[in-house]
Amino acid sequence: MPKISEKGLKMPSSPVRKLVPYAEAAKARGVHIYQLNIGQPDIKTPEQAINAVKDTDMTVLAYSHSAGNQSYRDKLAVHYNKIGMNLTDENIIVSTGGSEALMFAMGSICDNGDEVIIPEPFYANYNGFATASGVTVKPISTTIENNFALPAISEFEKLITDKTKAILICNPGNPTGYLYTQEEMDQLTALVKKHDLFLLSDEVYREFAYDGRKHLSVMNITGLEEHAIMIDSVSKRYSMCGARIGCMVSKNKEVMATAMKFAQARLSPPTFAQIAAEAALETKQEYFDEVIGEYIERRDVLIDGLKKIDGVEVANPGGAFYCVAQLPVEDTDVFAQWMLENFELDGETIMVAPAAGFYSTPGMGKNQIRIAYVLEKESLEKAVRILDHALKAYKA
Amino acid sequence: MPKISEKGLKMPSSPVRKLVPYAEAAKARGVHIYQLNIGQPDIKTPEQAINAVKDTDMTVLAYSHSAGNQSYRDKLAVHYNKIGMNLTDENIIVSTGGSEALMFAMGSICDNGDEVIIPEPFYANYNGFATASGVTVKPISTTIENNFALPAISEFEKLITDKTKAILICNPGNPTGYLYTQEEMDQLTALVKKHDLFLLSDEVYREFAYDGRKHLSVMNITGLEEHAIMIDSVSKRYSMCGARIGCMVSKNKEVMATAMKFAQARLSPPTFAQIAAEAALETKQEYFDEVIGEYIERRDVLIDGLKKIDGVEVANPGGAFYCVAQLPVEDTDVFAQWMLENFELDGETIMVAPAAGFYSTPGMGKNQIRIAYVLEKESLEKAVRILDHALKAYKA
Ligand SMILES: Cc1ncc(COP(=O)(O)O)c(C=O)c1O
Ligand SMILES: Cc1ncc(COP(=O)(O)O)c(C=O)c1O
Repeated sequence: MPKISEKGLKMPSSPVRKLVPYAEAAKARGVHIYQLNIGQPDIKTPEQAINAVKDTDMTVLAYSHSAGNQSYRDKLAVHYNKIGMNLTDENIIVSTGGSEALMFAMGSICDNGDEVIIPEPFYANYNGFATASGVTVKPISTTIENNFALPAISEFEKLITDKTKAILICNPGNPTGYLYTQEEMDQLTALVKKHDLFLLSDEVYREFAYDGRKHLSVMNITGLEEHAIMIDSVSKRYSMCGARIGCMVSKNKEVMATAMKFAQARLSPPTFAQIAAEAALETKQEYFDEVIGEYIERRDVLIDGLKKIDGVEVANPGGAFYCVAQLPVEDTDVFAQWMLENFELDGETIMVAPAAGFYSTPGMGKNQIRIAYVLEKESLEKAVRILDHALKAYKA
Repeated sequence: MPKISEKGLKMPSSPVRKLVPYAEAAKARGVHIYQLNIGQPDIKTPEQAINAVKDTDMTVLAYSHSAGNQSYRDKLAVHYNKIGMNLTDENIIVSTGGSEALMFAMGSICDNGDEVIIPEPFYANYNGFATASGVTVKPISTTIENNFALPAISEFEKLITDKTKAILICNPGNPTGYLYTQEEMDQLTALVKKHDLFLLSDEVYREFAYDGRKHLSVMNITGLEEHAIMIDSVSKRYSMCGARIGCMVSKNKEVMATAMKFAQARLSPPTFAQIAAEAALETKQEYFDEVIGEYIERRDVLIDGLKKIDGVEVANPGGAFYCVAQLPVEDTDVFAQWMLENFELDGETIMVAPAAGFYSTPGMGKNQIRIAYVLEKESLEKAVRILDHALKAYKA
């Protein structure tokens, strides 16, 4: 029998999917499950995005340009320029989700064995993209005690070798909800310039910045033009995860020309979804005000609730719609599974993501979970209550 | 300035795209161009596929399962089983085009530096996927004189090293239109079993088999279960290239479990397009009869016309909708560009794909072009006439 690749063996399994069979079994037993394990919001997609597709009169569903439809890229540039990014269509390649943009970026700047430094905990699929691209992730730890703020820049410098190609940040962060400060952005800017690295910034949660704080994009930093690569996506912004539309953005011409070769090889991003994404750009500010208001209320309900549970510690997310909570248990892999297999409160239980999968350093995050606040407040209140009872029952 | 990757430098540019700027310029001068350079058919997408999307009542455009919607995979299995493939949903991962299925397959079975043997000329983007995956392509040459039939199996054996992981065939072939014979399939089967290799078969043109010949799928070969991986796509079958839906199919459980990890990392294939693809499965046989009838007529018009041109040689395509023609010129890169820049017949010219980009061996195919017969017969007749005149003018 022919053998699969070492790379394939090394590919991580998705930490948010491992529990699915236990959830299925619980459902089969009639237990209702609050799904807090994945970032699939319940928020409605803007109607005009779906309607634009329903209104299409196309008769041949054809390939688009490999960089995406011209009309969409033009409007995207206008959209970004409203927040001062100073882009043209040439700085944008439309991708199949932010996921593909991450693959394009890694492929364009990294060879097999090259290193990318990523503050951990981080979006678990960075591991998958890195493994698929032959890239080694060098994690730099941030801690719940410190609200997941960046460690001193000297800690980064300790990790830099001649294989280091980039620093990858997620701002606001998944799974931490961490929103980078001006000071941190300044330090990272100085660092990548000093060491001639790329700064890859995953900003798919850009709009979700709370408490009156402003999101700081790498695209707005003067002097960083050759270093900055932004990853973006319509998935969370317009709650249209299934569109599979994102983009890779950079002012570095060589990077874009290189990424374009990867884009051409796979022909084009999805055509229907580009129509939807283009229409989504017309979404009114009221939609965002409402959605963001909703997420803030959910966050507050969730964080306040978690803080009241004995032995639970939680960081204060400044953005996105996730939080990391530390539980008074030894191994959240076991505990999360136990909640699905052996626990219920009035016929209900919760599904959360054990956080170890968001860390690259072995052993880290074993007593933490990630909760996505993608359900309405009443559900979150119930979920917190279930967690509280579950922890007590688990200890007993 | 930070440097892009060696891999990025090595990524090939698309051979069908190089001429685009010259075509744009010709259009700007008012010249009408017959586009025979890419495999974007003019055939109408089955109406029910587009209507299924238009009829959707979804309000949240959500991620699908990473392997694709269960309902779609179930129906795909039924579809394949009608042609005796004996599959279940577990043998199928829905991908973003056949393109992504090729990436999943290469990643699942090849490490950096591993080798895949591919009969050349081959679909040019195999080079891109191989480079992106760190895989080395080992071409095995087929010739127009021999109608692009496979060389003796002993020629394959000369290329096999301990790095060889797979043989990749495209059946029917792009760019050759070559349809594999039973004898060839038997020989390939024996070969991959003897050397414990995978047999990757790109069958995206499966339905387009002409002259009463039957397409032979690797999925129908008994005893090849652990070796065979099929790449498929809705792009050409239903003329819905812009959907970006394909799939990777194998009965090898380890391969599928590994590919699934790549699929999970990128979350899901496009949701709208899966709805369209699922509806497309209901396409009546009449649609195919009509489309295939049309392609056969086009092929005959094109091949007959080409054969009448002095100094032009052409193979007889048994399937797909491409043909490779050898021209009495030294370098078709130069000639194809010249037709766009310096030639017109009654205000019209043609755009073809220089064939060198479909070969991996340097120097091969320099006097060949690929023509996609994706336009109606009248256009093809005119295109042939233009080529005839252009060749005469070019020599003079
Ligand atoms: C931080 C982050 N980046 C990228 C992605 C990829 O999203 P998509 O491919 O849907 O754009 C996600 C999805 O959850 C994410 O959380
Ligand atoms: C031989 C072959 N394989 C795969 C593909 C990829 O097609 P898609 O990604 O649209 O399914 C193509 C497209 O032209 C092709 O010709």
